[in-house]
Amino acid sequence: MIVILKPGTQQEKKEHLITWLESQQLTVHISEGKDYTVLGLVGDTGHIDVDLLQSLDIVGSVKTVSEPFKQCNRKFHPDDTVISVGGAKIGGGNFCMIAGPCSVESLDQIVSVAKSVKASGATVLRGGAFKPRTSPYAFQGLKAEGLALLREAKKETGLPIVSEIMNVNTLDLFDDVDIIQVGARNCQNFDLLQELGHIHKPVLLKRGLANTLKDLLMSAEYIMAGGNEQVILCERGIRTFETATRNTLDLSAVPALRDLTHLPIVIDPSHATGNSRFVPSMALAAAAAGADGVMIEVHNDPMHALCDGAQSLTPEEFDALAKKISAVRQAVQA
Amino acid sequence: MIVILKPGTQQEKKEHLITWLESQQLTVHISEGKDYTVLGLVGDTGHIDVDLLQSLDIVGSVKTVSEPFKQCNRKFHPDDTVISVGGAKIGGGNFCMIAGPCSVESLDQIVSVAKSVKASGATVLRGGAFKPRTSPYAFQGLKAEGLALLREAKKETGLPIVSEIMNVNTLDLFDDVDIIQVGARNCQNFDLLQELGHIHKPVLLKRGLANTLKDLLMSAEYIMAGGNEQVILCERGIRTFETATRNTLDLSAVPALRDLTHLPIVIDPSHATGNSRFVPSMALAAAAAGADGVMIEVHNDPMHALCDGAQSLTPEEFDALAKKISAVRQAVQA
Amino acid sequence: MIVILKPGTQQEKKEHLITWLESQQLTVHISEGKDYTVLGLVGDTGHIDVDLLQSLDIVGSVKTVSEPFKQCNRKFHPDDTVISVGGAKIGGGNFCMIAGPCSVESLDQIVSVAKSVKASGATVLRGGAFKPRTSPYAFQGLKAEGLALLREAKKETGLPIVSEIMNVNTLDLFDDVDIIQVGARNCQNFDLLQELGHIHKPVLLKRGLANTLKDLLMSAEYIMAGGNEQVILCERGIRTFETATRNTLDLSAVPALRDLTHLPIVIDPSHATGNSRFVPSMALAAAAAGADGVMIEVHNDPMHALCDGAQSLTPEEFDALAKKISAVRQAVQA
Amino acid sequence: MIVILKPGTQQEKKEHLITWLESQQLTVHISEGKDYTVLGLVGDTGHIDVDLLQSLDIVGSVKTVSEPFKQCNRKFHPDDTVISVGGAKIGGGNFCMIAGPCSVESLDQIVSVAKSVKASGATVLRGGAFKPRTSPYAFQGLKAEGLALLREAKKETGLPIVSEIMNVNTLDLFDDVDIIQVGARNCQNFDLLQELGHIHKPVLLKRGLANTLKDLLMSAEYIMAGGNEQVILCERGIRTFETATRNTLDLSAVPALRDLTHLPIVIDPSHATGNSRFVPSMALAAAAAGADGVMIEVHNDPMHALCDGAQSLTPEEFDALAKKISAVRQAVQA
Repeated sequence: MIVILKPGTQQEKKEHLITWLESQQLTVHISEGKDYTVLGLVGDTGHIDVDLLQSLDIVGSVKTVSEPFKQCNRKFHPDDTVISVGGAKIGGGNFCMIAGPCSVESLDQIVSVAKSVKASGATVLRGGAFKPRTSPYAFQGLKAEGLALLREAKKETGLPIVSEIMNVNTLDLFDDVDIIQVGARNCQNFDLLQELGHIHKPVLLKRGLANTLKDLLMSAEYIMAGGNEQVILCERGIRTFETATRNTLDLSAVPALRDLTHLPIVIDPSHATGNSRFVPSMALAAAAAGADGVMIEVHNDPMHALCDGAQSLTPEEFDALAKKISAVRQAVQA
Repeated sequence: MIVILKPGTQQEKKEHLITWLESQQLTVHISEGKDYTVLGLVGDTGHIDVDLLQSLDIVGSVKTVSEPFKQCNRKFHPDDTVISVGGAKIGGGNFCMIAGPCSVESLDQIVSVAKSVKASGATVLRGGAFKPRTSPYAFQGLKAEGLALLREAKKETGLPIVSEIMNVNTLDLFDDVDIIQVGARNCQNFDLLQELGHIHKPVLLKRGLANTLKDLLMSAEYIMAGGNEQVILCERGIRTFETATRNTLDLSAVPALRDLTHLPIVIDPSHATGNSRFVPSMALAAAAAGADGVMIEVHNDPMHALCDGAQSLTPEEFDALAKKISAVRQAVQA
Repeated sequence: MIVILKPGTQQEKKEHLITWLESQQLTVHISEGKDYTVLGLVGDTGHIDVDLLQSLDIVGSVKTVSEPFKQCNRKFHPDDTVISVGGAKIGGGNFCMIAGPCSVESLDQIVSVAKSVKASGATVLRGGAFKPRTSPYAFQGLKAEGLALLREAKKETGLPIVSEIMNVNTLDLFDDVDIIQVGARNCQNFDLLQELGHIHKPVLLKRGLANTLKDLLMSAEYIMAGGNEQVILCERGIRTFETATRNTLDLSAVPALRDLTHLPIVIDPSHATGNSRFVPSMALAAAAAGADGVMIEVHNDPMHALCDGAQSLTPEEFDALAKKISAVRQAVQA
Repeated sequence: MIVILKPGTQQEKKEHLITWLESQQLTVHISEGKDYTVLGLVGDTGHIDVDLLQSLDIVGSVKTVSEPFKQCNRKFHPDDTVISVGGAKIGGGNFCMIAGPCSVESLDQIVSVAKSVKASGATVLRGGAFKPRTSPYAFQGLKAEGLALLREAKKETGLPIVSEIMNVNTLDLFDDVDIIQVGARNCQNFDLLQELGHIHKPVLLKRGLANTLKDLLMSAEYIMAGGNEQVILCERGIRTFETATRNTLDLSAVPALRDLTHLPIVIDPSHATGNSRFVPSMALAAAAAGADGVMIEVHNDPMHALCDGAQSLTPEEFDALAKKISAVRQAVQA
């Protein structure tokens, strides 16, 4: 850690700070420049409060040398993590196509969508049973029954399934779910993350609307610190001033995360844009950008979908898109 | 709800949409302008998916007439809600001064801070027992023991206490806590909010970093929909591009929320700015802006605070600030 | 325009407002609902101040029916605008590859880069002569001399050239420049835009860091209102809370603008990310998303570039990228 | 400047970088830690491109020690700048009350508003003659005639005047204007700023919607670098995701800028909120926060204002507000 003191700092205050830093088991290297004094702190700075140092009136700024995320950090684990689920692989060059309805609504619906997306090349089936809705008066999902219907669709098609958990108390219900999804609103629900650190199952972690990439990695670190190394990161749009799309898809998260971490990165263009007309364009862009997968809402009857119909593709639209995604992947790998 | 069709929409598509809307038990008033056709939908539009309509290719835009929040809406409940806790009142002209350390660390610390903030005029004691930390490797609070120490401080001083809950499973531990706080990161943890709708105790709900005022009100609505009408709203900074402060305190939330809702509004300048040097200025501004209270971190030894020392005032600084806050309140009410 | 009155509005105030609206030459259709009164305003509402209506205490909200941008609006001009410059075409399915250095530095440099990017398939040469720099102490460009060097490179290679204007007073110097660029910081420099409305030359208009897509279209409208219909829109990143990239590339601007306007849309991944390691991924994504072109910084010696070296590709990197861009375009058009 | 290399960097690449840095006339101090190598660069680093270093694949991060703004930096000029204009002083404890209409509309209007705001305690008269409007079809101000009317109002009342410039070519028209305003949209119109560096007159510089405080200071630096040290900074709201107010007033800019700079800081609550109902609350907050002044729109007939009527107070509302502002200032200074 590096502490830069303000010009004109009184000698007495400077010494007071250095004494305090040394009392924290740190060695302090002092470098006096023309205007600034720079303190280099050597030792375990993990317990030092950067904000506290920053707020001292003699301190100009504080810089950290090492990053706070360890297990997900590519610097210490250069090789891509590859996650296997059912027959599907995610990461390390393996592209994953996750598709299905926003909400599970009925056995017919989920089985029919599952069959059609499988035929188009989907490798994982998505379907919401517990639905986080902004309004308490909106449809909240079929809950346990929804998970049961998903299980049926899995049995019928062989597709592994992913569904969102909102509450640690429902974890038992997810026994047959292959990938547990943590939604954007729970990206920093640390108690939930900690609990998911103790299971042996992939977790698809969605970036929160106000989370930086480093925040997202710290949330992944919460899961990994508990022993569960199977984390899939998912970018699904951040909150900005732009209102033409529901959120702003931050596609540069793909190369930027690729630099920072070895974990797989999946893009959800459906929630990011909130508009099915924009989904194909953004799904193709994700494939071209080098994402490890896409997660796309498909509904056999968007006009009657119980939630988020606006962002769902029809099976026919998904089929056309899946073909183009394959072509784009070939183009960029050539 | 008002649906504006694009210029040049084909008659057939228009009729198809109108038929579908009528099948949803709505009456459709059609108004043909020079360029645009405007459809006015009358009836219960609560189950209509605005995003879905918006995404149709013949639809230019959709406008809603009524607001989705009901119980917290001032339009239907013009009088301010006043919440009583211990001897303190919050709202309707009653100003509430909440103070205390970020984390409860020891009996000595919490009792000492409690006594001093009480002497300076604080009406509620804050203290964190369960701490949401970005890093899994950071201090997470004393948990149950922290709540026990808070209880002691309450016994010693008579101050009602507020502390943050992170997990519904710990609700039993909060029996002696007077106000339950929901942190910014859990502002849309709907399962937690729903649970807090069934208790009979004030909830201090912090605005999430990416939540609009309307999102915040929808989260309050989750609590109120369960029967608990004692919700205190708390603005504590939103996430923006500015990095000179930890977050950006949105103080205009005070007059804007005042218009929209009857619930009390409290400002937390400590978390918003993350820097004790900026706290007095923002606390005074909150009082001048007409907030119903402030929530301020006070620590007897900020240099050794286990968390967020940077944003804590010393008891002496708080005492000076409290006097000025009173003076400002008198100035604006004169 | 639609005005929704608050519940419980006094009859007298309502009538006062209606009288005022009628005095503004508008016909007012009144529709009384259970809670709300809705006023539909018919006539020329262009001179009515939406914000003023919105601020009246009896008004709940105001909705506009028509969009304020006219000439660039796809609703009134369904066909794509195609812009011809030199031999190159932009828009309507014609993809444009703009490449070159951030700053023109010397004759050798610009000619050498021009030749190599042309060989790789670039259709337009970019090069900055007037450079907007955050710091007054940074290199500000070669100015007139830079434009002269660009002209030489054009003569040598036949490539049309694009360069940024910062000041209407330098317009004369741009006689041989084929496309005049307006930078992000001048996106709402309305005096400059108005002046560019009177020339007969394509303008490449970059979106400002805080501009919505609708703001960008209003700025395009400023140019078009003056008679110059040759406007190329350029997305180059917006300002958000994320700091892993210099700005956040809003790639969903491609399908969203496509819906709203007939003007061509070009993506600048170099300025958006500020990091050459992220540029290829985002350029490929832009092509896959359906953009009408990309604008990429290429420098023959990035380590010694006078400005923005960090975001420049080498000619070799650009050559590899250009091949992949072509492949991606074929893949999505198949 | 401090450069932190990634773990596992090859010795050869490290030496290559060090050689290059030394070739830039820098002395390089090398400090080898357990995981990281830290390079301390001593010498004139002003010409080193931080982004370029950052983008190198062996570089983890780059930290700058000194700040790029010099003349406006409080570190080098500890005392507050005080600006005198007419009889009014701004800064260093002198509070300035700027009031007047958004647009100058007629002689009657501007003189009448000027007289009434003067009677209420305003010390400077504002009035727009050149109006930056998002739409090319909106009223753009009375221009030269508007400035002439302002001059009359100044003659009648003795109030110094402030008005916005949009174009260097109109500078001659501002001879009798006491403070020249640069609007938010021109905050980074560097050519305009440079020109204003050569005049001898105070400049009121508004923060751009996407500008950080450091950006704002760099823009002030542009003016000061030319020799004009009379810069007044003005916060008028930044662009965020919140839509309940037109922009988000960042009031913590007051203490944060106070730390960074010696220049006076004025708050414009009218443009920030866009709603006259929110203005008094935010103006009082600005005074409580320690701002050096406020700038408030006042109109004698807001219902007929040609622009921004929604955010204007009536003279009566302004009078009541001015009294409260004085009371708040006394309260915080006691």
